[in-house]
Amino acid sequence: MSIRYYHHPAPFQLELGGELRGLTIAYHTYGRLNEDGSNAVWVCHALTANSDVADWWPHTVEAGAFLDPERYFIVCANILGSHYGTTGPLSVNPATGKPYYADFPKLTIRDMARAHRLLADALGIDRVHALVGSSVGGFQALEWAAEEPKRFKKLILIATDAKASPWTIAIDQTQRMAIFADPTYGEPRPDAGMAGMAAARAIGLLSYRGPEGYNATQQDAPDTPPGSLKRACTYQLHQGEKLCRRYNAYSYVAILDAFDTHDIGRGRGGLEAALSRLTMPSILIGLTTDIVFTPAEMRALAASLPNCEYREIASPLGHDGFLTEHRQLNNILTPFINE
Amino acid sequence: MSIRYYHHPAPFQLELGGELRGLTIAYHTYGRLNEDGSNAVWVCHALTANSDVADWWPHTVEAGAFLDPERYFIVCANILGSHYGTTGPLSVNPATGKPYYADFPKLTIRDMARAHRLLADALGIDRVHALVGSSVGGFQALEWAAEEPKRFKKLILIATDAKASPWTIAIDQTQRMAIFADPTYGEPRPDAGMAGMAAARAIGLLSYRGPEGYNATQQDAPDTPPGSLKRACTYQLHQGEKLCRRYNAYSYVAILDAFDTHDIGRGRGGLEAALSRLTMPSILIGLTTDIVFTPAEMRALAASLPNCEYREIASPLGHDGFLTEHRQLNNILTPFINE
Repeated sequence: MSIRYYHHPAPFQLELGGELRGLTIAYHTYGRLNEDGSNAVWVCHALTANSDVADWWPHTVEAGAFLDPERYFIVCANILGSHYGTTGPLSVNPATGKPYYADFPKLTIRDMARAHRLLADALGIDRVHALVGSSVGGFQALEWAAEEPKRFKKLILIATDAKASPWTIAIDQTQRMAIFADPTYGEPRPDAGMAGMAAARAIGLLSYRGPEGYNATQQDAPDTPPGSLKRACTYQLHQGEKLCRRYNAYSYVAILDAFDTHDIGRGRGGLEAALSRLTMPSILIGLTTDIVFTPAEMRALAASLPNCEYREIASPLGHDGFLTEHRQLNNILTPFINE
Repeated sequence: MSIRYYHHPAPFQLELGGELRGLTIAYHTYGRLNEDGSNAVWVCHALTANSDVADWWPHTVEAGAFLDPERYFIVCANILGSHYGTTGPLSVNPATGKPYYADFPKLTIRDMARAHRLLADALGIDRVHALVGSSVGGFQALEWAAEEPKRFKKLILIATDAKASPWTIAIDQTQRMAIFADPTYGEPRPDAGMAGMAAARAIGLLSYRGPEGYNATQQDAPDTPPGSLKRACTYQLHQGEKLCRRYNAYSYVAILDAFDTHDIGRGRGGLEAALSRLTMPSILIGLTTDIVFTPAEMRALAASLPNCEYREIASPLGHDGFLTEHRQLNNILTPFINE
């Protein structure tokens, strides 16, 4: 259950050019791979999360939940470019002996999926019972499934997409603008660009929670004086500060940039063709109040997958509902993954 | 039709304390006040707009449109704190002989409405045939109507609210965080905080356009290379730069701060009581894809106004639809204002 590291023995080629000479992948596993290697479940994590699924996705990795470690061998790898152990901007660049920081090469979601593939090979997981991804985790899941459709028996997707939409790219660009407005971004230190990243995180939060999320949780007391700091303000400030205590702005930008490149149709004859080859049983879950991956878009995505069941779960918390609505998720996903 | 200025001969007391020793109000008028003074229509403008309604609200101020200058005497005043002629952060502080910049006193929407009131008195407009406001313009309209319900015969509201919601306050706070991430904000010059304001504007745009708006207008060509700047990115950058060429960050923050204070129930026995006194015929228009003032919230607001008709107009452009859907607006509002 503790973090482990895989050190890849060869250079790792990047889709947009260049290579990483040293590649380390941090990962967690839960449960045991069975003798015929048929019980592996791979979870892809979102933006600023890490490989410890049991930590960031409460009540999904437990006995009886859909990620049941008594039944499955669950693997989650920290994504390329991240802050949590896998090679990223704070890693030492072998060419200079110093951390990459802003010089870290540009990544794509495809690079992230290819790093997952290397780890799966190294762990001897030939076939994956279920590949799971929510949000940007779903980007990786769809990308990896498009790369090796035969490797996966089932596909579990939550609030995600097969291609980054103009809307989500605009959200990312706005976050980058906030980070670049902080002139300390670019300085060769791990805490560069912190004020900018705090604002960027607050932008992200707006999209993760949406109108219903804020109005459900951030109402002020009726007699709050007009000049005082409102609860919604405190919340935004707090969320920004919280991320700054645990993340770095270079990784944040690297992952935003990768997000925007997401398109499983690239080099595969287009989006429709790539989706049509994902014939394994799949399930897609949308969230009623999600403004990042809206229910309308989720229905369209499910309809373009050949063998996909669409389910929608009710949550007042917008996109963030995927992290909190574990009861509804388990109710839907436990039968799907076990049957 | 050209801009005029009213110089108020007395100090102007501010709701949160302090006063403005000199108060200038910039305004536009269209048409003529008739002999019995019964044809005045007052338009309140939104965030970064100005007093020239005919310019920022295309095809609404023309013969046959709902703001018909052959029929009505239309007035629009630039709001307190703004960049466009009314006293604001770039005005000279009589106490120092230098512009206020960051020392400009904190404003409320109530202050803005009270400044409108002074101008209406000075222009000899005792009774207003229709008070019109969309977005933050609607904040002022509702606030002014709550202050002097007898002054207004009809009330026209578009995509607005009687109290700033936690969601809209969170959007404002996020914009402030982006501006404050730019350390030039606070420097005593009109172009301080420009990189921060560009990011703030991009945040605002996300909320004004929403998922449907971006996905309808910012799709990339199918073969756009993954490393290239996406159309949605260019759009965000462009919108940020455009505002920086025409506005200042001190005014922007002053108006965001005022936005957050909006609550017509303050000092009037609460929101419900204040709304219940707005018995004049009113109409509220919501926009199908607006994520700032959602259709669900608009229906609730209309239901809490005693004599209000609710109409919803279809637009793919989110909140910004109020600026573009002039045909639908005129179709609904021309009969309402004329009848």
